[in-house]
Amino acid sequence: MQKFKVAVLGYGNIGKFAVDAIQASPDMQLEGIVEPAAAYWEARPSALQDYNLVESLEQLPRVDVALLCIPSRAVPETAAQLLAQGINTVDSYDIHGQLSDLRIKLDQVARQNDAVGIISAGWDPGTDSIIRCMFEFMMPRGITYTNFGPGMSMGHSVAAKAISGVKNALSMTIPVGTGVHRRMVYVQLEAGADFNKVSADIKNDPYFANDETIVNQVQDVNQLIDMGHAVSIERKGVSGLTHNQLAGYSMKVNNPALTAQIMVSAARAGLKQKPGAYTIIQIPPIDFLYGDKEEIIRRLV
Amino acid sequence: MQKFKVAVLGYGNIGKFAVDAIQASPDMQLEGIVEPAAAYWEARPSALQDYNLVESLEQLPRVDVALLCIPSRAVPETAAQLLAQGINTVDSYDIHGQLSDLRIKLDQVARQNDAVGIISAGWDPGTDSIIRCMFEFMMPRGITYTNFGPGMSMGHSVAAKAISGVKNALSMTIPVGTGVHRRMVYVQLEAGADFNKVSADIKNDPYFANDETIVNQVQDVNQLIDMGHAVSIERKGVSGLTHNQLAGYSMKVNNPALTAQIMVSAARAGLKQKPGAYTIIQIPPIDFLYGDKEEIIRRLV
Repeated sequence: MQKFKVAVLGYGNIGKFAVDAIQASPDMQLEGIVEPAAAYWEARPSALQDYNLVESLEQLPRVDVALLCIPSRAVPETAAQLLAQGINTVDSYDIHGQLSDLRIKLDQVARQNDAVGIISAGWDPGTDSIIRCMFEFMMPRGITYTNFGPGMSMGHSVAAKAISGVKNALSMTIPVGTGVHRRMVYVQLEAGADFNKVSADIKNDPYFANDETIVNQVQDVNQLIDMGHAVSIERKGVSGLTHNQLAGYSMKVNNPALTAQIMVSAARAGLKQKPGAYTIIQIPPIDFLYGDKEEIIRRLV
Repeated sequence: MQKFKVAVLGYGNIGKFAVDAIQASPDMQLEGIVEPAAAYWEARPSALQDYNLVESLEQLPRVDVALLCIPSRAVPETAAQLLAQGINTVDSYDIHGQLSDLRIKLDQVARQNDAVGIISAGWDPGTDSIIRCMFEFMMPRGITYTNFGPGMSMGHSVAAKAISGVKNALSMTIPVGTGVHRRMVYVQLEAGADFNKVSADIKNDPYFANDETIVNQVQDVNQLIDMGHAVSIERKGVSGLTHNQLAGYSMKVNNPALTAQIMVSAARAGLKQKPGAYTIIQIPPIDFLYGDKEEIIRRLV
């Protein structure tokens, strides 16, 4: 079997799990890992002994698809560059308010260069979006609530860390129902910092100002970190003229492991699409799976 | 706005709700209802006063799509006939073991006649299939359990009614976990029938022989009938090399109302596909929704 060639860009939280997911995929071959920071590493992690570790994608043989396991803010430029070279991309760009404009921009580049970009291929945006879409065509009128957590919020943790006097911080997202969330923030203080002031500053920060926020002081934030996350999506709505139709979805997962797996499945789906940029609700679900189409239909439909 | 023209074939359980769902869809126009049995009705139901009720599709103006709200066993022939005339079809064919072969057959007819057939567009097969598909690309290794009910099983109720001495019967499907089901059967006996013999005959029937089956005698089966149904789908699996990833889906719904709504949403999706026959996992989820593509992406992804 001809395997398709994949590069992982970025060896952070998601990149590590992407390497696992590619190795577990019978139709994929990991061509190499691109990590500019590797130049500054004191030693290469033993997990990478068997892999081609390079500082830029040009140092690898031509790949079919690049997984962008890089910060969301770096995605627009990197994706555009690779698509312009005719290389398929997959990212898990997670800025909800901006992803639709990003898709329009990348769609043009991808079409012009005969490539496919899959954007926001994580779990939210991502598989949760498929659920919201499906719930809406099952019950076109009604309300959908997406409840996140319990789980770590990267964005809120970074915002809390930026507060003066905070040495390290963890912000947990706690669902309290109907799409409302409480923020449980755990802070490790710099020597001499005043907890009451830090707590007030966090609660006034725009990231936290609109949610119930409880700040706790701890000795060592790193002891609290667990990469589990959860979500629950609920809809109560109307099918035709029939009310009180109820549907729910939930998951409890290792967050970067799931994100990386969805990206890898999306890489496969991308190879089956016409040139362009897609969110995952624009792709047939079957395209994400490995295997014979008729066998999948017999087994899963 | 140019609305697309829909015919409902069959005015039974699902057909009635399909009329509702079409009326509630801003982009659809109900051209008429085809019901051969109408010739034998004593009176036209008042709900149909405003609609064109005919005995065969030829009596209606040309439609864009026909919803086949007819028994599954009649679907293969009717769908093939309509597709051969270049008319799109949607059905909720529910015989799991045969739907993949049916799709292959209809695919050929549809391609040759520039039409689109969507098959098995209900909730199982149907939206449940999207969930099973998604769960598998999120966690490629693992086990998925589909637990049906509590709800009425049409097939099992018909099988119980066919037992000698049974005047009327209802078989409820009760989930007992890990995809195992108990059958709760309620029978109304013919005068002089022996309950113990009827009970034994039901338990020995191939429809019931492999499941725990409890038979109860009641005075009037019709007093028990409720069209609610439920499902719960669970998967515990592996993303990449990370175990114990948990996901679940559930719904509690009016069964024919949901089936009809999904068929109507599928009718919309069918108009966006290239000629051929599709199960719903082969169609982008966004295609089932009414509205502007970019607005949907902004709102749901």
